Amino acid sequence: MPYNIGKLLVLVCLFSTHVSAQDKALLQYVKPLTGTDRMGHTYPGATVPFGMVQLSPETDTQSYELNGKYNKDIYKYCAGYQYGDQTIVGFTHTHFSGTGHSDLGDILIMPTTGKLQMHPGTADAPETGFRSRFSHSTEVAEPNYYKVQLEDHNIKAEMTTTTRVGFHQYTFPKSDSAHIILDMMYGIYNYADKNVWTFLRVENDSLVTGYRQTNGWGRTRTVYFAIAFSKPFKHYGYQDNSPKEVYRGFWRKFKTDEDFPEIAGKQIRMHFDFSTQQDEQIKIKVALSPVSTANAMANMKAEVPGWDFTTTKRAGQLRWNKELNKIDINADEETMQNFYTAMYHAFINPTVYMDADGSFRGLDQQDYGTSGFTNYTTFSLWDTYRALHPFLNLVQTKRNADMIQSMEAHYDQSVHKMLPVWSNSANENWCMIGYHAVSVLADAVVKDNPYIDGKRALEACVTTARHRSYDGLGYYMDMGYVPEDKNGSSVSKTLEYAYDDWCIAQMAKKLGRKDIYQEFFNRAQNYHHVYDSSIGFMRPRMSDGTFKKQFDILNTDEAGFIEGNAWNYSLYVPHAPEEMIRMMGGNKRFVPHLDSLFNIELPDKYFEATEDITRDGIIGNYVHGNEPSHHVAYLYNWTDHPEKTQERVRMILKRMYHPTPAGLSGNDDCGQMSAWYIFSALGFYPVCPGSVNYSLGSPAIKEATLHFENGKTLHIVARNQSDKHVHVKKVTINGREITNHTITHEDITGGGELVFWMK
Amino acid sequence: MPYNIGKLLVLVCLFSTHVSAQDKALLQYVKPLTGTDRMGHTYPGATVPFGMVQLSPETDTQSYELNGKYNKDIYKYCAGYQYGDQTIVGFTHTHFSGTGHSDLGDILIMPTTGKLQMHPGTADAPETGFRSRFSHSTEVAEPNYYKVQLEDHNIKAEMTTTTRVGFHQYTFPKSDSAHIILDMMYGIYNYADKNVWTFLRVENDSLVTGYRQTNGWGRTRTVYFAIAFSKPFKHYGYQDNSPKEVYRGFWRKFKTDEDFPEIAGKQIRMHFDFSTQQDEQIKIKVALSPVSTANAMANMKAEVPGWDFTTTKRAGQLRWNKELNKIDINADEETMQNFYTAMYHAFINPTVYMDADGSFRGLDQQDYGTSGFTNYTTFSLWDTYRALHPFLNLVQTKRNADMIQSMEAHYDQSVHKMLPVWSNSANENWCMIGYHAVSVLADAVVKDNPYIDGKRALEACVTTARHRSYDGLGYYMDMGYVPEDKNGSSVSKTLEYAYDDWCIAQMAKKLGRKDIYQEFFNRAQNYHHVYDSSIGFMRPRMSDGTFKKQFDILNTDEAGFIEGNAWNYSLYVPHAPEEMIRMMGGNKRFVPHLDSLFNIELPDKYFEATEDITRDGIIGNYVHGNEPSHHVAYLYNWTDHPEKTQERVRMILKRMYHPTPAGLSGNDDCGQMSAWYIFSALGFYPVCPGSVNYSLGSPAIKEATLHFENGKTLHIVARNQSDKHVHVKKVTINGREITNHTITHEDITGGGELVFWMK
Repeated sequence: MPYNIGKLLVLVCLFSTHVSAQDKALLQYVKPLTGTDRMGHTYPGATVPFGMVQLSPETDTQSYELNGKYNKDIYKYCAGYQYGDQTIVGFTHTHFSGTGHSDLGDILIMPTTGKLQMHPGTADAPETGFRSRFSHSTEVAEPNYYKVQLEDHNIKAEMTTTTRVGFHQYTFPKSDSAHIILDMMYGIYNYADKNVWTFLRVENDSLVTGYRQTNGWGRTRTVYFAIAFSKPFKHYGYQDNSPKEVYRGFWRKFKTDEDFPEIAGKQIRMHFDFSTQQDEQIKIKVALSPVSTANAMANMKAEVPGWDFTTTKRAGQLRWNKELNKIDINADEETMQNFYTAMYHAFINPTVYMDADGSFRGLDQQDYGTSGFTNYTTFSLWDTYRALHPFLNLVQTKRNADMIQSMEAHYDQSVHKMLPVWSNSANENWCMIGYHAVSVLADAVVKDNPYIDGKRALEACVTTARHRSYDGLGYYMDMGYVPEDKNGSSVSKTLEYAYDDWCIAQMAKKLGRKDIYQEFFNRAQNYHHVYDSSIGFMRPRMSDGTFKKQFDILNTDEAGFIEGNAWNYSLYVPHAPEEMIRMMGGNKRFVPHLDSLFNIELPDKYFEATEDITRDGIIGNYVHGNEPSHHVAYLYNWTDHPEKTQERVRMILKRMYHPTPAGLSGNDDCGQMSAWYIFSALGFYPVCPGSVNYSLGSPAIKEATLHFENGKTLHIVARNQSDKHVHVKKVTINGREITNHTITHEDITGGGELVFWMK
Repeated sequence: MPYNIGKLLVLVCLFSTHVSAQDKALLQYVKPLTGTDRMGHTYPGATVPFGMVQLSPETDTQSYELNGKYNKDIYKYCAGYQYGDQTIVGFTHTHFSGTGHSDLGDILIMPTTGKLQMHPGTADAPETGFRSRFSHSTEVAEPNYYKVQLEDHNIKAEMTTTTRVGFHQYTFPKSDSAHIILDMMYGIYNYADKNVWTFLRVENDSLVTGYRQTNGWGRTRTVYFAIAFSKPFKHYGYQDNSPKEVYRGFWRKFKTDEDFPEIAGKQIRMHFDFSTQQDEQIKIKVALSPVSTANAMANMKAEVPGWDFTTTKRAGQLRWNKELNKIDINADEETMQNFYTAMYHAFINPTVYMDADGSFRGLDQQDYGTSGFTNYTTFSLWDTYRALHPFLNLVQTKRNADMIQSMEAHYDQSVHKMLPVWSNSANENWCMIGYHAVSVLADAVVKDNPYIDGKRALEACVTTARHRSYDGLGYYMDMGYVPEDKNGSSVSKTLEYAYDDWCIAQMAKKLGRKDIYQEFFNRAQNYHHVYDSSIGFMRPRMSDGTFKKQFDILNTDEAGFIEGNAWNYSLYVPHAPEEMIRMMGGNKRFVPHLDSLFNIELPDKYFEATEDITRDGIIGNYVHGNEPSHHVAYLYNWTDHPEKTQERVRMILKRMYHPTPAGLSGNDDCGQMSAWYIFSALGFYPVCPGSVNYSLGSPAIKEATLHFENGKTLHIVARNQSDKHVHVKKVTINGREITNHTITHEDITGGGELVFWMK
């Protein structure tokens, strides 16, 4: 890496009042390229913690369909960038981090020189369009900074951000034919076809405003923007590739193809033309807003009033450094890099969805004014309820409460009266199953997050969980399980509803609502109803009460499950592992069963049906690249073989995470994979969010200090820890020995010292 | 007419404090069906004066293109209704009144019984869809009330409105299968294809909210709405005819085809199902907003909080009666009907475009809050600057000022920094030529409209008129005319720019801006540059200074002109008729020239190229159905044959206007044709808006009383007036004889008595 961030940050610290003296320079350990090769679906570009703007290069995109069929190749471009690619199409301002399926990729900007080209061209012949070859040797990816040389145009591209503004800095060669391409056709997941409408105004010779409306994963999504150029363009024009419009006769009174300041349509590209001197920089600020172009302008003014790229970059990097310092670890170099890269990925989502003045657009497509909380979006809850939100609740307590208030606002605005399932940009896409927002709310309530109104949270959870027309829930409420012949993925749903219901019961108990506690405690037992004791696995059940006959425990595609096969999902009773083990034959039968999960040789045909992960993402039949097994390694703690939890956890930490582009074995899923790493590396994991307990594993760090918002600090020491010393002999919290492999939230946030004696 | 409006209004007056004792019952003279047959392009449905909602039946619609070519048949459906049709497709909430080209037709509602049909069916086989046969014998069209029997469904349909709410009342037969169809695909001018996006939420069992975004004559137009049903629907569903969407997999977790409350897409129809008793009424309120569904709800609450159809209808009819009473005439029955129907049509446009709370959407697609004026839209200015706005300025002085402030707001929001040309619903469609908003502003300024800020108006006019890239204006500014080889319709443009420039000069003079006066006075002389003295006609001129060789004075299609041929347009110098006559050879040559305009037998081939009018709409080569000749009959006043003005005006009043469906010989053009009637019937006409003078004609009334907002009253008497006594012997204003065929605005608004002695 040609850029010494460590040194820079030391220098920056000297001039800044924002960084406390004890903050360590941690940015050097963050490798934003991690996960950009193959299945990680992360992006390498610039963003600030939880930022609304994610400014990152696009190496390609694909249509959702090809010849009327689902196009599998679209999948690798969930974040717009694949490390293996050799060209860059441009830079866009919004990206999901680590998702399966995708959207976004708004407002592509590409600087070019030479002949004006209004088409991106192809990867194998970049000279046929505006795209450019690039090399990883010129690429720098740091938190809030990305740099690359665009070889075909001889332009150095740099970018940084604030929460709501993307800041581009392009260094041009001498050219009489320099261009900035603004491609409003481009988008992630479906090139062009998802575009509903684009509206653009060239306000003056260096300012463009507009909005972009898409029908993608967010069905009715609009992003407003303002684009300011540091240098006036000489000339501009556009290309409208929209289908013919209804009535446009009288627009011919202008020469609308050049210097015409108001453009709208479905498929628009623009170009802005310049003459440049050698090494002349053209800077571009792109501010976003969920509400209006006026608000985008105000966001720009509030966050980047001037043109000082370096100051903006440094300010964002200081914010990152501050966030990373919430946990200060001591470990070997690869663990340091894995850990802080995981912290980085864990602090990207959910993302702010609110203007600087506090206004935002709701799920009902109404605009809301200041509401007393920061509104967030990008809730990939089926993934993130497991470890990401418990992690945020621990070290980003206020933010997690704001996220919960955002979910409650979503509930208020929802015509279904439901908390979010997978929501983004004032849209619900209903992706995946369950209603795991209740887990996030319950976890915060039982752990006494001081910013949560428990009563309001409980009401939203209960109403959500009683929505009979949702995804087999009526059957579940009536019959105690989802019948497979009525509603698919029925076992996964039954098990996850049961867990969610247990969460609601815990909240109700905490809030003294015995009636609700009893109702949902009863529902939480429903996992029993899909267990087939004759085979020792969870199994789809039909509406007549019989188990489904055709059944293959290894097949993920097999009806009854989703993103996991029966073998994995049969272990999903996070709220009652003890009872589950008893149900499955007790300790003696359970331990070899669990062993076999990790040891089995999975035939290729089963792997092929397992989405989202590479071959490295599985250990036997244990699929770390998908989430339903994330708690599984910790289940040995409920048997007489806790040392196997310690071994498995260390094995997963070692094999599934590397600080390299191919270092993530599956989708990072908005930080869930990373949060698993962080918890496990620290030595404990929230097997059952909604409970105050964490299950102990085997720390991969040597020392760690956690700084909580209550002002307290937990110091973790792993004595004698090494790759050869992964077993835990003894654990003490403030000198008191822990004998049940469990540490409570209160123990942790109370601060003090947690010591692991390794052997 | 089965309904005695006169009696009703007398009764209503007794109970209302809003109607002054002296208001006469005038609604009986208004025939809303006038102009609905063939070319009038008016609609028969319900609206209040200048209302945002125009709730009217649709008999059909057409696509703008058929097999890739312009579909001429679309033209007759500019207002959605053709009197000759025999079926009704449904009722929509927005209509232009009298336009050529069109848009709107939003939110079609159709009540049906029997088998649920989700397609409109065809006119020749209405039973193939939800449309219904109807008969004019059951049809009642009054101001703010429309009634018809839907024969196929045995449903009585009635409708009324407030400014922002359409109110439907359907009387059903007994049926277990009664339906309300909500067709969001339907639209005027292009069935379905202009739909960009539709968003719908079923908020509860009797409330639907949403918005509709179209790309029609308004390129980026969104109308928000709320629809309340008086009776809960049993069940609802939708049909989505949109092209396949990008990603919708997880919506399958609901049964989305029935009772699913959130629908969005490009082509949506919904149905709401009921059981009805014999004669049971289902009422529906549809509130509109330019800003949001929340504002639509608030508009409904503010204007129609309850379900009393009759009260809403009466309130609107009282408003109409009050407006009509601004001019109280005495005339023969047909003239009474023509006159008040014209008043009705003149008080429909421009339309309010603002919520009850004062917020509206601007041309820049930003939302604005309260602004101290009522915001209007639907500015068909090439038509309406001639007589409609002068008429509104006279009897709706405050409203005309609000309209001007709306135009100034448009100017502020315009990225072109131009006043509106043809604007509608926060969009500019640039239809027709010139920049005639300046005429409207100048007219109000020189006539001392007390609500206008002259300085602000002048600035907007000057900036507009200096926009070099607009429609040949740069050439005009540099060369003194628009060269035909550079920009088409060049003579029409040159002449209209020259007139508009004269208007600006008048404003500047009034405001003491001599510099601007001189600049625009000079530009106002440019009409000379397109006059070919060798043939005595205006003629297209080329950029090399020569006149265009190929030239036919009768051909409207001939390059150089628009909506008028050289013969008509050669008379278009409204600001300098005296000089024009001198230029054209003086009185002796001009009078026979003008005579021949009315006397020539126009060969069919020329008529066919004349858009917008029926064969009845021309007298010789005088085309009353198009606007450029509207001042022409008054030009005799500048010759020694003023009696010919009197004859021609009376002939036009008699031949071109009838209170019958086919009674308008051309498009009413947002009230311009009607305003011509009103002025001319009263005996004077604004030949040159922007001047304080009106030219005298021959009154068709016997007596008239005009009530002005300054509290004064003008009483007009036409002594001995009849069809046989059309010549004016003498005219006096308050006893003073007028000898120059001219009366000033001050004379009129000063009140008193204007007497025409007819012979």
